[in-house]
Amino acid sequence: MGSFCRTHTCGDLRKEDAGQEVTLCGWAHRVRNLGSLIFIDLRDRFGITQIILDPVSTPEAYAVGQKLRFEYVLCVTGKVNLRKDPNAHIVTGQIEVFASQIQVLSESDVLPFSVADTQMDVNDELRLEYRYLDMRRGTIVNNLVMRHKAMMATRKFMDSQAFIEVTTPILGKSTPEGARDYLVPSRIYPGAFYALPQSPQIFKQILMIGGLDRYFQIANCFRDEDLRHDRQPEFSQIDVEMSFARQEDLFPIIEKLVQAIFKECKGVDLKAPFRKMTYADCMKLYGCDKPDLRFGMQLVVLDDLAKKTSLSIFQDIVNGGGTVKGLTVKGGADISRKDIAELEGFIQTLGGKGLAWLKLQESGFTSSIAKFLSEDVQSEFVDRLQMQMNDAAFVVAGPEKKVNQLLDHLRRKLARARNLIPKDSYELLWVTDFPLFTYNEEEKRMESEHHPFTSPNFDDMQFIDKEPLKMRSSSYDLVLNGYEIASGSQRIHDTVLQEKIFTTLGLTPDERASKFGFFLEALKYGTPPHIGIALGFDRMMMIMANTDSIRDVIAFPKTQKAQDLMTKAPSLVNEMQLKELKISVK
Amino acid sequence: MGSFCRTHTCGDLRKEDAGQEVTLCGWAHRVRNLGSLIFIDLRDRFGITQIILDPVSTPEAYAVGQKLRFEYVLCVTGKVNLRKDPNAHIVTGQIEVFASQIQVLSESDVLPFSVADTQMDVNDELRLEYRYLDMRRGTIVNNLVMRHKAMMATRKFMDSQAFIEVTTPILGKSTPEGARDYLVPSRIYPGAFYALPQSPQIFKQILMIGGLDRYFQIANCFRDEDLRHDRQPEFSQIDVEMSFARQEDLFPIIEKLVQAIFKECKGVDLKAPFRKMTYADCMKLYGCDKPDLRFGMQLVVLDDLAKKTSLSIFQDIVNGGGTVKGLTVKGGADISRKDIAELEGFIQTLGGKGLAWLKLQESGFTSSIAKFLSEDVQSEFVDRLQMQMNDAAFVVAGPEKKVNQLLDHLRRKLARARNLIPKDSYELLWVTDFPLFTYNEEEKRMESEHHPFTSPNFDDMQFIDKEPLKMRSSSYDLVLNGYEIASGSQRIHDTVLQEKIFTTLGLTPDERASKFGFFLEALKYGTPPHIGIALGFDRMMMIMANTDSIRDVIAFPKTQKAQDLMTKAPSLVNEMQLKELKISVK
Repeated sequence: MGSFCRTHTCGDLRKEDAGQEVTLCGWAHRVRNLGSLIFIDLRDRFGITQIILDPVSTPEAYAVGQKLRFEYVLCVTGKVNLRKDPNAHIVTGQIEVFASQIQVLSESDVLPFSVADTQMDVNDELRLEYRYLDMRRGTIVNNLVMRHKAMMATRKFMDSQAFIEVTTPILGKSTPEGARDYLVPSRIYPGAFYALPQSPQIFKQILMIGGLDRYFQIANCFRDEDLRHDRQPEFSQIDVEMSFARQEDLFPIIEKLVQAIFKECKGVDLKAPFRKMTYADCMKLYGCDKPDLRFGMQLVVLDDLAKKTSLSIFQDIVNGGGTVKGLTVKGGADISRKDIAELEGFIQTLGGKGLAWLKLQESGFTSSIAKFLSEDVQSEFVDRLQMQMNDAAFVVAGPEKKVNQLLDHLRRKLARARNLIPKDSYELLWVTDFPLFTYNEEEKRMESEHHPFTSPNFDDMQFIDKEPLKMRSSSYDLVLNGYEIASGSQRIHDTVLQEKIFTTLGLTPDERASKFGFFLEALKYGTPPHIGIALGFDRMMMIMANTDSIRDVIAFPKTQKAQDLMTKAPSLVNEMQLKELKISVK
Repeated sequence: MGSFCRTHTCGDLRKEDAGQEVTLCGWAHRVRNLGSLIFIDLRDRFGITQIILDPVSTPEAYAVGQKLRFEYVLCVTGKVNLRKDPNAHIVTGQIEVFASQIQVLSESDVLPFSVADTQMDVNDELRLEYRYLDMRRGTIVNNLVMRHKAMMATRKFMDSQAFIEVTTPILGKSTPEGARDYLVPSRIYPGAFYALPQSPQIFKQILMIGGLDRYFQIANCFRDEDLRHDRQPEFSQIDVEMSFARQEDLFPIIEKLVQAIFKECKGVDLKAPFRKMTYADCMKLYGCDKPDLRFGMQLVVLDDLAKKTSLSIFQDIVNGGGTVKGLTVKGGADISRKDIAELEGFIQTLGGKGLAWLKLQESGFTSSIAKFLSEDVQSEFVDRLQMQMNDAAFVVAGPEKKVNQLLDHLRRKLARARNLIPKDSYELLWVTDFPLFTYNEEEKRMESEHHPFTSPNFDDMQFIDKEPLKMRSSSYDLVLNGYEIASGSQRIHDTVLQEKIFTTLGLTPDERASKFGFFLEALKYGTPPHIGIALGFDRMMMIMANTDSIRDVIAFPKTQKAQDLMTKAPSLVNEMQLKELKISVK
């Protein structure tokens, strides 16, 4: 089996170590046989160290060196020498190790793709199948190290604030609200199933009822959904709940938590308190509830001006309850006709009817709707849109929801296209006062915008019976660079109000009892006011790792079809297993 | 909704705070209405503070106080007064709060059992159904706080040693080895299943192959087994793996980890290095592989002396390959005939044939087998068993495995009965050199004693083809007070050897490929030597919490039938859910 007692890692040695006898272990990252000497770049997680094999003074080691191939695992003993030609690109570049002994701990077959050549473009499926080789290329391991640091920073900070981490069950109860549950058949109770938790929501509220006061958990959560690029069937959230507290107590804690994570992982000092904006203002100014504040281009309402144009479609839309809104692109007068045509196509793809443009240049005002605007109205448009010389503006008309959606997409597209997004910039925003309910058009029923345990805003209680969609809730999201990274709410701590909300959601007494009976029972025995939040940990890591794939920050991710290409899970199981569970596959 | 902005917890106030105006929130733990005054013990996780309501100076607060019942949730504002009769039993016993305002944040129905009366014997099922009320009684929350501290200490220590915590998948692949898997049907691939991991074994080895070097995780693991009192269907283990390392590298790290946990949670300084004993010596000296070293009573082999008796059954057993062993009970000569009869019954219940006893008293040597022993042989028994005046000894004969089992049980029973186990004592032991294989009599096949990735002891490689049961492995357990709290091994890092082990275990090439194909593939590309261990976190917590039920250290445990009595999981699900999964229940 051999000995492999290393004295240092491959990232440790510096010029001060010259003259020492050392033993290193690692992988043969590169091997160059120059005939007179063999050079090996020996790699481990901590770095790369250059090893020299000399045929004259150490013929045995040299002979081993001649048989080496990429990714052989080696144990090398030798003396640290100063390099004549230091390599400034690596931290050990001042030294090399002149090997007296070299031992092959493990060989390697020919690789399916190169580990050393990180520029090589390897297809995603092959990377996932050989995840361990992809890890050796560096990026994934670096991301995992960052993830570990973020988890450490989270726990250290939450502990300092008297929060207790509690592990809640993975084998839970199915309460099909929102997303689809993963089910686990029970062997002892045939026909009964556990569900994997979509979140520990009810358990953390139960912990508050149990008097734990301050809870957190980096929790495993599961959703059997059709997956988007930033979703995984299993994901992690930083789950937080506290008693006797309100937004003004919770927000500073979460801000300090996010600051601690950024400081630890990126060395970045985030400014706090974070900005706050109501849901209504977000929709008005950015057309969405998770605006990216790294760049400007707020939306401008033009309804009154639209009526002053001679454009009948504008008039009709505004009079029919729709809206006309625009945004201004600084220096955008250089956007070509061709690019504008492309933007029009983009708007149409998203279901928009059209896109009007306006430009202010030395040569004068031009616009796709110029002929419908009097000179005064032109000026009013320019003023309202705060257009300056060489700016362009774009205007969209239609139902408010649609207009907001189109301008949100347009705003983000323009920001990317025109490089308006500063690198390594992190803009955080609390979005507050979400609606309490939303109407599901497909299923023709009321749904909770957040979840059914969310407290209403008590100023809106008068609407609950007749106009529940007007009600705001005591809920909030935290937005980072246009991504929702956290979501939470004040919870209902009163049985009567909780029943009322369930009724408004159309849950029958039977459904209430079977799904939430135990929880309604628990609420009866002295429930403290409590509030909570959950941070999407993977998504945060994705943003911090500067990648647009959540797979890059998860050790063993699944594909969009929820498959693990390395282990080939899910897979067939034997009949005996299904027989014991008393289930059959149709 | 009211305000509930507390200035202190119920465990904060001391005599130095006298004169301050404070606001506290908590539960009405006890309410005593003395007519002239109302006393409330206000409780939260942090402690209890006495509140006084006075009908004269604060009639409104007093009026609220008259309506209070147990476990109402209150917000109390008032002035801190020094108590005339301090209560030395609680940390806030020097003060009381004279309430100026009291607000009921939440009411409580009549409780199913008392929270305040912790002496009240509540049946286990009711405690589990109302887990949140059981939590309020204190013990469970204290255990959860200890658990949190242990997790924090674990992470802090492992991080300090350059170990990276990596979350491995919960939706894994079924590889039915050992225990039964929990299965999760795939919706996208009907007929295929995920399995919940019994441990992250393969993933952590893959992480080593990926070059992570040092991994740990406090991992969720699952086994669908019939449960014993110290087992749960889901449990936590501190999972550790490191590359380029051997026992002499790993043991000191785990010892320091266990020291850190004990120091943080119990304030106890454990001595290190821990003791070490081979599996063979354990069996010889204690009859089991997890001896409780808090007390003595080592087993003594008496085979040669047995032959010198005139007891034919001893002769026959020894000549037939069996053994005769005994143990000595210090001062045990006072064990009555009745108690001895009970011990004999105990031995018979366990399948033993009989129990011989010996006593050495002032009145002389007596024994159940005295007439079969010459005086010389009596002396030899006394000497070998190191019997002193007033000691007793017990002797059992039979096949070695049975004798060991009987004496192990007898030893532990006697230690408990005679109060030989010191309180708050923690004795740790590494048990090393376990057998590599074990023979499953029922299924007539070889099994891994540890798991199939365990490296053999290379000194025993000559036995692999013909006498594999003679082979020792490079595996080890850590034993605490007679409980196995950790288990690990040097891993195989060589494809050829791994295949050889699979062959010896009787796995066909097809089975190998379908169960472990991806892992055998991974081993090919430069696998570093690596070693690992997993600590049973729940069991450790159980021992440290001085309880004999693992449920007491888990927030939401399941019953022996794997049921959550609070949420009623597992439960029926709707037809739509099963239809989407294309499974049916027989």
